[in-house]
Amino acid sequence: MLPFQRVTVIGLGLIGSSICRAVRQSMPTARITGHDANPEVREIARRIDLCDDVTDTAGASVMDAELVVLCVPVGRMGEVGDAIRDDLPTGVIISDVGSSKGSVAAALETALPGHVIVPAHPVAGTENSGPEAGFATLFHNRWCIVTPLPDNPEVAVERVCAFWTQLGANVEKMTPQHHDLVLAVTSHLPHLIAYTIVGTASDLEQVTQSEVIKYSAGGFRDFTRIAASDPTMWRDVFLANKEAVLEMLQRFSEDLSAMQRAIRWDDGDALFEHFTRTRAIRRSIIEQGQDDSRPDFGRSHS
Amino acid sequence: MLPFQRVTVIGLGLIGSSICRAVRQSMPTARITGHDANPEVREIARRIDLCDDVTDTAGASVMDAELVVLCVPVGRMGEVGDAIRDDLPTGVIISDVGSSKGSVAAALETALPGHVIVPAHPVAGTENSGPEAGFATLFHNRWCIVTPLPDNPEVAVERVCAFWTQLGANVEKMTPQHHDLVLAVTSHLPHLIAYTIVGTASDLEQVTQSEVIKYSAGGFRDFTRIAASDPTMWRDVFLANKEAVLEMLQRFSEDLSAMQRAIRWDDGDALFEHFTRTRAIRRSIIEQGQDDSRPDFGRSHS
Repeated sequence: MLPFQRVTVIGLGLIGSSICRAVRQSMPTARITGHDANPEVREIARRIDLCDDVTDTAGASVMDAELVVLCVPVGRMGEVGDAIRDDLPTGVIISDVGSSKGSVAAALETALPGHVIVPAHPVAGTENSGPEAGFATLFHNRWCIVTPLPDNPEVAVERVCAFWTQLGANVEKMTPQHHDLVLAVTSHLPHLIAYTIVGTASDLEQVTQSEVIKYSAGGFRDFTRIAASDPTMWRDVFLANKEAVLEMLQRFSEDLSAMQRAIRWDDGDALFEHFTRTRAIRRSIIEQGQDDSRPDFGRSHS
Repeated sequence: MLPFQRVTVIGLGLIGSSICRAVRQSMPTARITGHDANPEVREIARRIDLCDDVTDTAGASVMDAELVVLCVPVGRMGEVGDAIRDDLPTGVIISDVGSSKGSVAAALETALPGHVIVPAHPVAGTENSGPEAGFATLFHNRWCIVTPLPDNPEVAVERVCAFWTQLGANVEKMTPQHHDLVLAVTSHLPHLIAYTIVGTASDLEQVTQSEVIKYSAGGFRDFTRIAASDPTMWRDVFLANKEAVLEMLQRFSEDLSAMQRAIRWDDGDALFEHFTRTRAIRRSIIEQGQDDSRPDFGRSHS
């Protein structure tokens, strides 16, 4: 019944630890082995009983795995591939959760020639990091994008899809290249903009940081959440998906210049027309269950 | 004990209707009169018993008021001032809730010469609009900025401050000019950027709107909330606070160009350093009670 009986998770941060918890909850008979390069993280993982076994080396974690899921920053995928290569059992499927897929697929194909690599990306997360930030329902009703490679056996792809379905996700398949374009706009550009504006606001001479914080409920605070995301993860994402990010950034900058021009020239009609158009997207996101329908994201107001 | 016994609210949208509800809750003996230019809004206000009285004209609403709070888009303040001028009783204090203060102060001083005008701005809201979107606790633990004018009697300023304190807000005083600079970065620029990126994402040829919606949990959905705010209100804000908004936009664009350059030249250290810096601001916002401490704004994950 289960797509995999023995799952290994390498990298026990927010996503990796959420997978461990979700596997425990939805596939209680599966055996889950974990590894993290950081000894403190391994110690926490053991203390909170995240996995059936936490190994001290990456190689030891994969020896009898049916599925290995790499949950490390996308810039480290190749070196983790190198570290596990000699210990991988026959028939194992390698997958990952990286936010860029073209570069990860290339790095893993180079590190693990002859192995079945089925890249994937669950589009879910919070601004928190580390093994204690994860939770079992993180993937419920979120989308997981699986990006099969040309030589993938059909059955391997279907098992990876079944794995994510079992964790509560909706699964969609597309090419790594299309994934990278879609995520550049739905995730990478928003993060870059949020990181930028939080920096801009910190660097003003005429407005103090204390004022920025006090009056952040005017809109600014919304940006600070994703700008609090893991710096290593995001540095790697922007470098790994450089072309698509720069393309989206260029389009955004052009659109922002058009808004700037409308303000400078008092073109209220252009502003009004634009602001009316953007309401519909929010409605669709809520209708499709991709955001909380309560006002203000359901923040408490009391 | 109460700062005002008879309060008039003109404009019964999100903020105006929240004031009505908050006055009912925190000053139950005060009498509250409302007016809205839109007859449908007046009908709703009567049906849901928002005020003690809802008048059909702006003039009729102010006749025995001690405090009149204008809760209309900032571009309409002057014309509402004209509409109530001949009916204002002696000793009344005029205030407002507009998101820009320099232009509102000027418009009201022109429309209402010789009257006491104490502009204010409660920094609170949700993405929803209209008389049914308001709620009594909207201002709890939010900041209300009062921007006294040079000829304001001290006692009038203190009564307006006391009014907002009674509604649950923390009050800070500053000049209209400083307010406009502070809000340009904490509120106006974030809204403009959110409106822009939602537009950018809708206009792509290679990525469908349906994909943008499905994968919005990657970060994009955070921006759609404030981009769903009232178009008329925001058109007016950008035109009314043009200079400060353009100044902040210029700084943001420079900072975004620096990020773009770091990505293009693979300068991972610059990205990492920047992304690390921005985490601290989020922590301070939460520590100071200006955002929900739960991950993901407290969105439900089940």
